[in-house]
Amino acid sequence: SSASTPIRATLFPGDGIGPEIAESVKQVFREADVPIEWEEHYVGTEIDPRTQSFLTWESLESVRKNGVGLKGPMATPIGKGHRSLNLTLRKELNLYANVRPCYSLPGYKTRYDNVDLITIRENTEGEYSGLEHQVVRGVVESLKIITRQASLRVAEYAFHYAKSHGRDRVSAIHKANIMQKTDGLFLKCCREVAEKYPEIKYEEVVIDNCCMMLVKNPALFDVLVMPNLYGDIISDLCAGLIGGLGLTPSCNIGEGGIALAEAVHGSAPDIAGKNLANPTALLLSAVTMLRHLELHDKADRIQNAILGTISEGKFRTADLGGSSSTSDFTQAIIDHL
Amino acid sequence: SSASTPIRATLFPGDGIGPEIAESVKQVFREADVPIEWEEHYVGTEIDPRTQSFLTWESLESVRKNGVGLKGPMATPIGKGHRSLNLTLRKELNLYANVRPCYSLPGYKTRYDNVDLITIRENTEGEYSGLEHQVVRGVVESLKIITRQASLRVAEYAFHYAKSHGRDRVSAIHKANIMQKTDGLFLKCCREVAEKYPEIKYEEVVIDNCCMMLVKNPALFDVLVMPNLYGDIISDLCAGLIGGLGLTPSCNIGEGGIALAEAVHGSAPDIAGKNLANPTALLLSAVTMLRHLELHDKADRIQNAILGTISEGKFRTADLGGSSSTSDFTQAIIDHL
Ligand SMILES: CC(C)[C@H](C(=O)O)[C@@H](O)C(=O)O
Ligand SMILES: CC(C)[C@H](C(=O)O)[C@@H](O)C(=O)O
Repeated sequence: SSASTPIRATLFPGDGIGPEIAESVKQVFREADVPIEWEEHYVGTEIDPRTQSFLTWESLESVRKNGVGLKGPMATPIGKGHRSLNLTLRKELNLYANVRPCYSLPGYKTRYDNVDLITIRENTEGEYSGLEHQVVRGVVESLKIITRQASLRVAEYAFHYAKSHGRDRVSAIHKANIMQKTDGLFLKCCREVAEKYPEIKYEEVVIDNCCMMLVKNPALFDVLVMPNLYGDIISDLCAGLIGGLGLTPSCNIGEGGIALAEAVHGSAPDIAGKNLANPTALLLSAVTMLRHLELHDKADRIQNAILGTISEGKFRTADLGGSSSTSDFTQAIIDHL
Repeated sequence: SSASTPIRATLFPGDGIGPEIAESVKQVFREADVPIEWEEHYVGTEIDPRTQSFLTWESLESVRKNGVGLKGPMATPIGKGHRSLNLTLRKELNLYANVRPCYSLPGYKTRYDNVDLITIRENTEGEYSGLEHQVVRGVVESLKIITRQASLRVAEYAFHYAKSHGRDRVSAIHKANIMQKTDGLFLKCCREVAEKYPEIKYEEVVIDNCCMMLVKNPALFDVLVMPNLYGDIISDLCAGLIGGLGLTPSCNIGEGGIALAEAVHGSAPDIAGKNLANPTALLLSAVTMLRHLELHDKADRIQNAILGTISEGKFRTADLGGSSSTSDFTQAIIDHL
């Protein structure tokens, strides 16, 4: 093994196909001699009174202590009015920025070539406030909250990301022509931060126009930063350009430098346990975690093996039009290391 | 002329390129012997106290009286905190449904073939309530309003549209997993209406997933119905699939059967007055107005001439990669009648 003291990282295998694709990550990391020791945590089956959710106190503490984690898909138990597990993690760990790199996979053809986009989504407020109520029968309202603090924080993250990754443009996505105060404040914060980064081009694009431009010519964009719901929408749109959520990594950044990488696709209960799932999104998310830890050699080696395997095309899971099992695909990646 | 009593329709040529593309519509209608007499109204240069906006009282009365109208792009004067002219029209005329058919134009190649989608957008409430305020310094909120009345009304319109246009599926687009009360009410209303149309398939799709599916495979959808902001976003996305807002018609339906067709692209001040603008979106919008009036023969004849001209490819405006002037393109359409 290459490291003397292993780095401890939290692993939430999650539900459905989660454990299988997490197994794939563990294997690849082991074979690549990544100096990481996983602390595995499963979602509880009962509400933990200390978190008021199915997430255990220990699992949150584990992420807080380790500062890094990886999470598979989590299905939120329906019907009892519980907060989504994903949202609870974002709130409890204050995961303020969700970063989704989205690039064309060599050899995997879609309608678009050379997509290379980074969406950076404010992850804690906006339309996700959870504040809704019925005014009178038949009239309901929900509150969108935009704060200066959260907007500055995510804008700062976006510009820092652009600069440190050699990217030259940040586009702030908004609907300030309609939501002048809320999205207006978001833009104001982006502008303030933009002034501190004169070397990065800054522009503002209305969300409807952004979506139209993205499907016409995604090369028009580079790094996109936006409030919560727009980020939810646009990151999925971008994923669609290169093949879908099964192929796109995601990483959540929290206060104090926490990084929780996650596969954002669903738990696919229909194929769970059948050795059919595609581990690519979780593997690529794990790679973003390695980059966060500045383990760039390991990150490059694993990322190249994943992309090489998909590009070669001999081993692909069913969602990519192949017939490989999760384990054969994983072995092929290991052979490419 | 083929008609004895002409139908009166209101025409808002609008700003920028508006008058040129409106001229194109007037010419084509004249040459096709469409029995319409236009009542032209321009946006005022001062606030009309009776409408509290730059829209004149007479112009709104004209649409109310005629029941049908066509509008070009309107640029909202900036800076004085006025309501957008488009929003004012929607509010004042209670234009509750915005219908945007979006289909691939034969011979005009994009990344997508055979797109054939109808987006139906709730046009009066949701995120467009205009209710926003600062809670404390650095904390602003905006209200999204969903009502049973407006949701039922637009759902009813969508199912009626699907049925009367021989379409077999309606997808309600939402984010009710997050906005359970507001989008939840919207869905509840759609479900109620769906029950009255057992012959139309009904499904519910989360907006982020919808955007991903649309860019992967737009053929998955047929008629889409949704709250205001989602409709704004998705209709532009769909327009992008087939080439942009310069090619897509739009029609607003109001209480009492009012139909106000409109080109939804901008006023393009940079090319205004230069005989360079593409009149296609306004022409196709005018065609939807004819269909609303049940002048299907005229509608077919004009639509075929527009599509035939674009398909032939000899005369195309610059935005479509050609070098024709507005008037040459218009003449080519007339020659195709
Ligand atoms: C599952 C859902 C609550 C979540 C969201 O809306 O944020 C998902 O779409 C995502 O993007 O992570
Ligand atoms: C101009 C703007 C206010 C408008 C909207 O947001 O509705 C436009 O984007 C549209 O779709 O008609």
